[in-house]
Amino acid sequence: MGKKADKYLETQEWSIVERGFHREKNAVSESLFSIGNEYCGLRGYAEEGATAPSLQGCYFNGVYEWSEKETETAYKGIIRRGHYMVNAADPIKTEIFVGGEKLDTGKCDLCDFERRLDLRSGLYVRTFSVRGVKFTFSRFLSMTEPCNLYQKIEVESTQPVSLEIKLSVDFATKHWGKKGRWEKVSSHAEGNYAQIVGKTQSTGQYLACAQEVEASGDCAFRPEEDALSAGVRITATVAGKFALTKHVACYADKTGETKGKMPAPSPKKSFEEALAENISYYKKFWAERDIVIEGDEENQQGIRFCIFQLGQTYHGACPTDNIGAKGLTGEAYSGHAFWDTETYCLPYYLFNDPAAARDLLLFRYHTLAQAKERAKMLDCKGACYPIATLNGNEACDLWQHASLQFQPSTGVAYGIRHYVTVTGDEQFLIDYGMEMLLEISRFLRSRGEYGADGRFGYFCVMGPDEFQMMVNHNCYTNYMAKKTFEYTVECFEKYGDRTRLNVEKEELAAFSACAEKMYLPYDETRKLFEQHDGFFRLPHIDIKSIPAEEFPLYHHWSYDRIYRNDMIKQPDVLMLMLLHAGDFTLEQKRANYEYYEPRCIHESSLSPSVHSILASELKKEDDALNFFGFAARLDLDDYNRNTCEGLHTTSIAAAWLNIVYGFGGVRSDKDLLVLSPSIPSIWRRYAFRLQYRGRVISVEVEKGRAAVSVEGDPLRAIVCGREETLSGTREFEL
Amino acid sequence: MGKKADKYLETQEWSIVERGFHREKNAVSESLFSIGNEYCGLRGYAEEGATAPSLQGCYFNGVYEWSEKETETAYKGIIRRGHYMVNAADPIKTEIFVGGEKLDTGKCDLCDFERRLDLRSGLYVRTFSVRGVKFTFSRFLSMTEPCNLYQKIEVESTQPVSLEIKLSVDFATKHWGKKGRWEKVSSHAEGNYAQIVGKTQSTGQYLACAQEVEASGDCAFRPEEDALSAGVRITATVAGKFALTKHVACYADKTGETKGKMPAPSPKKSFEEALAENISYYKKFWAERDIVIEGDEENQQGIRFCIFQLGQTYHGACPTDNIGAKGLTGEAYSGHAFWDTETYCLPYYLFNDPAAARDLLLFRYHTLAQAKERAKMLDCKGACYPIATLNGNEACDLWQHASLQFQPSTGVAYGIRHYVTVTGDEQFLIDYGMEMLLEISRFLRSRGEYGADGRFGYFCVMGPDEFQMMVNHNCYTNYMAKKTFEYTVECFEKYGDRTRLNVEKEELAAFSACAEKMYLPYDETRKLFEQHDGFFRLPHIDIKSIPAEEFPLYHHWSYDRIYRNDMIKQPDVLMLMLLHAGDFTLEQKRANYEYYEPRCIHESSLSPSVHSILASELKKEDDALNFFGFAARLDLDDYNRNTCEGLHTTSIAAAWLNIVYGFGGVRSDKDLLVLSPSIPSIWRRYAFRLQYRGRVISVEVEKGRAAVSVEGDPLRAIVCGREETLSGTREFEL
Repeated sequence: MGKKADKYLETQEWSIVERGFHREKNAVSESLFSIGNEYCGLRGYAEEGATAPSLQGCYFNGVYEWSEKETETAYKGIIRRGHYMVNAADPIKTEIFVGGEKLDTGKCDLCDFERRLDLRSGLYVRTFSVRGVKFTFSRFLSMTEPCNLYQKIEVESTQPVSLEIKLSVDFATKHWGKKGRWEKVSSHAEGNYAQIVGKTQSTGQYLACAQEVEASGDCAFRPEEDALSAGVRITATVAGKFALTKHVACYADKTGETKGKMPAPSPKKSFEEALAENISYYKKFWAERDIVIEGDEENQQGIRFCIFQLGQTYHGACPTDNIGAKGLTGEAYSGHAFWDTETYCLPYYLFNDPAAARDLLLFRYHTLAQAKERAKMLDCKGACYPIATLNGNEACDLWQHASLQFQPSTGVAYGIRHYVTVTGDEQFLIDYGMEMLLEISRFLRSRGEYGADGRFGYFCVMGPDEFQMMVNHNCYTNYMAKKTFEYTVECFEKYGDRTRLNVEKEELAAFSACAEKMYLPYDETRKLFEQHDGFFRLPHIDIKSIPAEEFPLYHHWSYDRIYRNDMIKQPDVLMLMLLHAGDFTLEQKRANYEYYEPRCIHESSLSPSVHSILASELKKEDDALNFFGFAARLDLDDYNRNTCEGLHTTSIAAAWLNIVYGFGGVRSDKDLLVLSPSIPSIWRRYAFRLQYRGRVISVEVEKGRAAVSVEGDPLRAIVCGREETLSGTREFEL
Repeated sequence: MGKKADKYLETQEWSIVERGFHREKNAVSESLFSIGNEYCGLRGYAEEGATAPSLQGCYFNGVYEWSEKETETAYKGIIRRGHYMVNAADPIKTEIFVGGEKLDTGKCDLCDFERRLDLRSGLYVRTFSVRGVKFTFSRFLSMTEPCNLYQKIEVESTQPVSLEIKLSVDFATKHWGKKGRWEKVSSHAEGNYAQIVGKTQSTGQYLACAQEVEASGDCAFRPEEDALSAGVRITATVAGKFALTKHVACYADKTGETKGKMPAPSPKKSFEEALAENISYYKKFWAERDIVIEGDEENQQGIRFCIFQLGQTYHGACPTDNIGAKGLTGEAYSGHAFWDTETYCLPYYLFNDPAAARDLLLFRYHTLAQAKERAKMLDCKGACYPIATLNGNEACDLWQHASLQFQPSTGVAYGIRHYVTVTGDEQFLIDYGMEMLLEISRFLRSRGEYGADGRFGYFCVMGPDEFQMMVNHNCYTNYMAKKTFEYTVECFEKYGDRTRLNVEKEELAAFSACAEKMYLPYDETRKLFEQHDGFFRLPHIDIKSIPAEEFPLYHHWSYDRIYRNDMIKQPDVLMLMLLHAGDFTLEQKRANYEYYEPRCIHESSLSPSVHSILASELKKEDDALNFFGFAARLDLDDYNRNTCEGLHTTSIAAAWLNIVYGFGGVRSDKDLLVLSPSIPSIWRRYAFRLQYRGRVISVEVEKGRAAVSVEGDPLRAIVCGREETLSGTREFEL
């Protein structure tokens, strides 16, 4: 695969730990030590400022700006103005002067530096000593009262030192370190209290933040306000221990309806009370969701980090939230949600938090109007879901992606079906799902065409594999569309009279015809699906012959050069064989894996997990484990050398898939749940839990045996290749 | 074809005449009444200003600006900053006050309005009366001393009127009517003389203009200078006749080497002397180049207008000049030269002015370094000629054109071969041509690839037909590349030892292998070349079913929608059958014409002529004449409704091709010249002349007979299907 780990953290089961300050890795650590609670996300930057690679970032879900520039184009269907999640106020802006000298972590000689993120509380602590003075910085976001952020600064000195500390909320932040996007609406500071309201420039959203500071000992408070900040300056002379605790409450008005006249939020709980609540929140969280791996500490840490970050990013708190490709941990990908949500993240929520899964799908329902508008822009009918979005509008201004890629739309249809299959929630289908299915099918019918040979399919498209830009009969697109048509017709036949939707028989018949005539390029002799019509005749490139320094290819190769050979960025055909596993034979899976795997360079971070899962099914244990290591520790080991820009949050979800679908052998695309566990030879034991149709299923796997326990009604399932009725705990030989 | 004429001009053999002021057509007339002399071009705007649709424009060949904005892209090979021919000074800026009231042609009641452009002198005259005062505005550009422009304003009034006229050179012009791009360097005005030097903002080129005004009667001169102009204000009381004559000399310093310290140019000849020189210039011009059509006054006027405009645009005066798509008549297409130069314009020069043809090819030789640089940007070897350029650099910032279209490079190779075939100038080949051929072949070899099936060709390309964007094995590209390889090898085998170029045998063998393995998609049964691999399987669209109001499609259809059916914008396969006519059978030509013609919407103005020429060969007289009418009167009848933006100068060249190659049946792609004249039934007679390998060939065609005269040595040629030796005058039955 050619990607290499870059390790500098300690491997601990329940914590992320950096010992010794790795200055050059500072921006990577900022991403890894991010904290979040869906409402807000805060990168792990040094609040007191550090001269080191850094991206100071604090983000609020759904707080965004319109792109500064409009794309100049005379062409229809090309997005003229996108939008992006904007870097918001720095709620814990800190300036520290020790003996009159400004503390800059990036410039000092630091002793005993450690930073630690505790996955069982969400507490992030940094400690170090400078010239005999020990500092401890702690922070966490409340998981139960999401507007609340807590910061504590502890100072310890045997010799008396004069200390001046300014703690403020600062709107003078720069998006991508370049340009400020906030105006101050009002501020007020008095005693140990300060509040400030800011407004975004183009979207007119408001953010109100109020802080209250308490000190453990004697000191003076001086409130301060300036152009874009409000806070308090504390002066003290410290000998022994001194602590400042700051509570910040932040409230985002995303519609602008308050006009900035916002209630002054005030934090109610102490640091310790709130932290205790987080600990009990996480106790329940881990009891339900932990995946245990014994015998592989690195991957144990990796998978827990993934699960922790998924929980921080999204748990269905708000219907307008979705999951950005980087979560709330960086500005890359502009905070946009992609097809990743339904395709990579949804299964995690389906099996762990069905209500959150439902909310994710409702996001698409609530943005159906925008998807219909987008279809019109493309001269089509129905609804076309955006490639990239925060608010439901298409935000991608590259026409070659926004106008040619339809996996978001087929992904929503797939997600609906998958949700109904795993939860059995038919009412959702009737109330919301079928309307989306209908509009997606209308889009797919109008965008597809019958070729001169009478075969239906998609011309001039790009599949998920973005290295084949403008092709005909992309196998993934055609197949996913076929399944969408079929499921739509099936739903209307079954539940049509229970919905308020009126659909003519002719329209359903037309959907069936599209499905029936759908062209799937396939070589029967070799059992190979052709990624698109003509793929097999493309020039071959031996990807191993590409020098390492030419990666990422987008930065080193002429743009058009990427598109004209049989190299792929991520798998299309193999993805199908995972999503619709039950439709393909093992022989087909083997043939296609062996053909496409050597052609894939995994320039998408979503790619290795798909390979790992298929490799497990094909008993290719080395491949399965190699690809899994990448997925589980993608960010911890900075495999793609861009973790500095934010975590690969949606790829993190794929790591969960990788265990459950890969080693666990779970398949959930058909009516009967499939479990086919295997265990890598280097692991002693692993275990995971699933919610499924009102039951909880626990799976524990050791060498040679698997135990499956079902809480709730007995369940018919296929385990290790045989249909069984599961009830209580059952053991299976592997 | 669906394109309709929009006529408002008189049809005269030697003039373009607008009688009565067509206010709404004013910008169209400005294009049609443009004057030019290759050095400079001046749109036919009312110099005194007219409130009416207008694009005031004056252009100097090779005077340009860099694009204001850089394209933001992380991708290699995409042009970040283009360049464009900039609107220069208005050299005949005029303000007229009659009895204190400003004359505005667009607002007055005009009597007896007429504008007339005389094709036998290049003189443009506008006359009209306003409230009893008659005005005549005349202007022309010297064809022999190209820096010189002459303007005359005649006023006639029976009643005494007070007159105030300001004549100046004004750099406050706006590019596209939007933004000024000039700074003043210096100015000076004294008595009846004024001079001013301007500088472009980003390229640092200079333009110096000096004017001298003479009056026919009593008046006062007051020199005036301001921020961006210099001129003279004349006051007089007129009863009877009064005339002002202004000479302007303009000198462009395109390299900036003068630093703006430019010699004060001064005109030397009177209006009448200079006009007499133009008349004798055009006498010779028309004696050599006229095409006579008897029995079809509209097309007679049309073809003469075309020949006149070609002469105004380019005649080989300067080696850094080329032919912009709009000549020097407008800002559309940014003054850029395209593949049109070698493919559509070169034949006119080859057969009328071989020295100018040679200069056109030398433009490519002098810009070989930029073409090599461009090839490198595309990760290729050799030389890739730009899609659009003024200075040799690629100026097109749309990657889908600049990185995927190679007809400029194969067009240069074709042009070299065509030049040598028609002129016999082997020395040019040895001194310049072979170096270009070698570098183009190197590019074509490195950009092409062997497919998995062992066939060579081009993947991810766009042929001349821009409605099929990113295809494999485009027939045009593959075939033209094949011919380029073959000709390169042939030249090196024949003349290799006479050049200073060292080429290894292995490299030539590799070129031959590429040519031999080149894939040409061809259906033997139907004798059809497939425009690209897969074209025959595309969805079919009946182009007659597209509502007229949806044209041009680029403005009404979603961008991607254009690319996914079997509609074509202009012909690729038929173009091949014209360029390499001798390589294809009549049966093939018929089959391909009948297949592709109904699929072509001619959204390129170059398209109809190609169809007309093929239709002539196939004896489809109606098609031949219909398509020809469009080509010959494209601008005069504003078929595309965008003549207001400038003339379609390179399409005008195709009208010449249309007579000589179409009705004349000339083919010049093989060693023996072919003549197969036919005559449309509505014509009485037509005649044209050709220069060919040191001879002059005159062709006169009437019903049933053609006369061919050769001045110079006897010539072996194929006439009416039989090889003949031509000498003196020979008659042939048709």
